[in-house]
Amino acid sequence: MADDVLFEFLHMEIVSHVYKEQTSREDTDKDRVTCVSILEGMGFRVGQGLIERCTKDYPTFKDDLDIMKFLCKDFWTSIFRKQVDNLRTNHQGTYVLQDNKFALLTQVSSGKQHLEEAPKYLAYSCGLIRGALCNLGLESVVTAEVSLMPSCKFQVVIQKS
Amino acid sequence: MADDVLFEFLHMEIVSHVYKEQTSREDTDKDRVTCVSILEGMGFRVGQGLIERCTKDYPTFKDDLDIMKFLCKDFWTSIFRKQVDNLRTNHQGTYVLQDNKFALLTQVSSGKQHLEEAPKYLAYSCGLIRGALCNLGLESVVTAEVSLMPSCKFQVVIQKS
Repeated sequence: MADDVLFEFLHMEIVSHVYKEQTSREDTDKDRVTCVSILEGMGFRVGQGLIERCTKDYPTFKDDLDIMKFLCKDFWTSIFRKQVDNLRTNHQGTYVLQDNKFALLTQVSSGKQHLEEAPKYLAYSCGLIRGALCNLGLESVVTAEVSLMPSCKFQVVIQKS
Repeated sequence: MADDVLFEFLHMEIVSHVYKEQTSREDTDKDRVTCVSILEGMGFRVGQGLIERCTKDYPTFKDDLDIMKFLCKDFWTSIFRKQVDNLRTNHQGTYVLQDNKFALLTQVSSGKQHLEEAPKYLAYSCGLIRGALCNLGLESVVTAEVSLMPSCKFQVVIQKS
């Protein structure tokens, strides 16, 4: 019941705290980068922890695509209570995960003027994905893009080692 | 599944972030107070939001004790997936809520040397209680005490208006 909003409320508080403590300083552009990377870092560590639990009783994965599918289904459901709606890949290490109703954006008004606020609420989740992949042996770069709230695309680019 | 640890992991990250950003400054004692009050403030606002959802379909409360009972059962369960184990009161506005296995302390080792770390992990929850009570019309002061991990006592003192 309140269970599902507990995480969302806490997430909102962190975003607002991280941004508030930064805006008290100068150099706005650098600050924006710092905030995103603080939130991304938190997500990264939580993602690492979560994926360990998720995959505890899971057989090994066949390939990268198999890992991405797991992420879109089991991992995503355990966090956001729904699957990713669409997964696309160019079969060369780039994956696009589309969530048409992303939980952490549903509380944000959908007017165009709020689009520039969106990255705040996506940084943590980019970190979650990157942390999960990292613990499964895949280095990646994860970015997010919103064109129409609350729909959201995460782009994952696997780094060849 | 991962659902229940999602909140706990995120909580850990915040505690560590808030303390890390403060320790980079001087005046340790003042800092400790600041950290506790930042975390308490986050909990307060989340508590306000949660209690609104919890009580949405609930009839009105008879008295303060009725509110406290609701907090110990429904509210606590929705957050920590268990009820408070023991509720005591002096019938003069002071309540003691005892949780014998407090979710946010179960990850902390139970050695005595960690006791002084405990307040870090309780500040947010003190805020949750105070925020919930505030939205139900009760001003309160909430403190927490640990004598043996992961058991924990929250003392709530209702402020007469």
